[in-house]
Amino acid sequence: MTGVTVPGGPDESPGGPDESVPDASATAPDTSPGRPGTAPRRRGRPSRTESAGTRDRILDAAREEFSERGYDKTSVRGIAKSAGVDSALVHHYFGTKEQVFEAAVEVAFAPVLKGREAVLDAPLEEVGERMTRMILGLWENPVTRAPLLAIVRSAVNNEIAAGVFRRLVAGQLLRRIAGRLDLPDAELRAELAAAQLVGIAMIRYVIKVEPLASADAEQIVERVAPVVQGHLTGR
Amino acid sequence: MTGVTVPGGPDESPGGPDESVPDASATAPDTSPGRPGTAPRRRGRPSRTESAGTRDRILDAAREEFSERGYDKTSVRGIAKSAGVDSALVHHYFGTKEQVFEAAVEVAFAPVLKGREAVLDAPLEEVGERMTRMILGLWENPVTRAPLLAIVRSAVNNEIAAGVFRRLVAGQLLRRIAGRLDLPDAELRAELAAAQLVGIAMIRYVIKVEPLASADAEQIVERVAPVVQGHLTGR
Repeated sequence: MTGVTVPGGPDESPGGPDESVPDASATAPDTSPGRPGTAPRRRGRPSRTESAGTRDRILDAAREEFSERGYDKTSVRGIAKSAGVDSALVHHYFGTKEQVFEAAVEVAFAPVLKGREAVLDAPLEEVGERMTRMILGLWENPVTRAPLLAIVRSAVNNEIAAGVFRRLVAGQLLRRIAGRLDLPDAELRAELAAAQLVGIAMIRYVIKVEPLASADAEQIVERVAPVVQGHLTGR
Repeated sequence: MTGVTVPGGPDESPGGPDESVPDASATAPDTSPGRPGTAPRRRGRPSRTESAGTRDRILDAAREEFSERGYDKTSVRGIAKSAGVDSALVHHYFGTKEQVFEAAVEVAFAPVLKGREAVLDAPLEEVGERMTRMILGLWENPVTRAPLLAIVRSAVNNEIAAGVFRRLVAGQLLRRIAGRLDLPDAELRAELAAAQLVGIAMIRYVIKVEPLASADAEQIVERVAPVVQGHLTGR
């Protein structure tokens, strides 16, 4: 099931998503456009190294809790307990449970944002194949697959998690790809292309329907990349 | 968001899926191929009308419980309580929780099986459009959308529910469509076509990403039907 190479993708960060969060802070302001009633987030680098360690420990605990239990069953108290800190400290660093979730998802989502650059840098006629390889590559790699599964499971079952998914996938990825197309219906095109890839992820990696679940990844790229390209630039 | 007409689809059964279960008993033997260790199911028409009423009441309660709570949080005891019967009676009629779930999903899945015939009866060059219209039509109709949402939510989060999804969607729908294609890779083709439609359902109806969530259904059919047809019969 391997063999998909992704320029700038997860293959270059064997240590997993923890090591590659180049865009997380740079893109943070874009991810919460105009949400009312949310407490201000503490995203800047803390002034003391000790605080940075605490923040990362909370974030690691949050990722683990959300991955294992899903959004609904995870509590700020549980995250705090797992990180060995008081709940108030979790609120201090991240705000609400939704904001902890978004921060955790952003870390898991970092490889996608990294792969995005390879898609955006491609010649227009190669964007379909690059996008297909990036998404398949992330799902093929167990390190990046686990958090993606957690995001999908949470987003399908919980409206708040779905909102985080919308802001990240639509806002950070699809809208940027659409921006390259220079067509009036670019966003719809990008979403129909994404739908093909989301559906393959669902059938191959989540529900695991054969023969697609065991098909060679390159064979899938061969068949799907032209479809994705067609949605993006066809007619 | 309406306007998708589906020959033989949900438009012809305004009372909802309860009224249209022509295939559920006819196809039941196919849905559990070789599962080991499961108790025999009582699917035949009960000898007394009273029993038929009880069975239906249990099934209605099961559909509601699974829809509202998902597979994991639903218990046979909860279904029994909601139906006003003893848990033993639920086991008597349906067997295990998985088997109650499968029976409930089969009822919700009946409109899909009904729409399937319209797909299978179409000329080969129209199968893509028919399949697209059938799936979109089922998701557009709130009556059929609710149980589909419940199935997707359960299948994404629970391996047993995913197994039921595989048996029904892959076994009852995709394999039959593949059977019409008369090509060596027919099943993979059918699944790639289904992936496009599953992804649209996810983005449009489950996660609700704009602009796809509010796009005109006919516009989607226009763009997606050729892609589905291409997967099925292209090259």
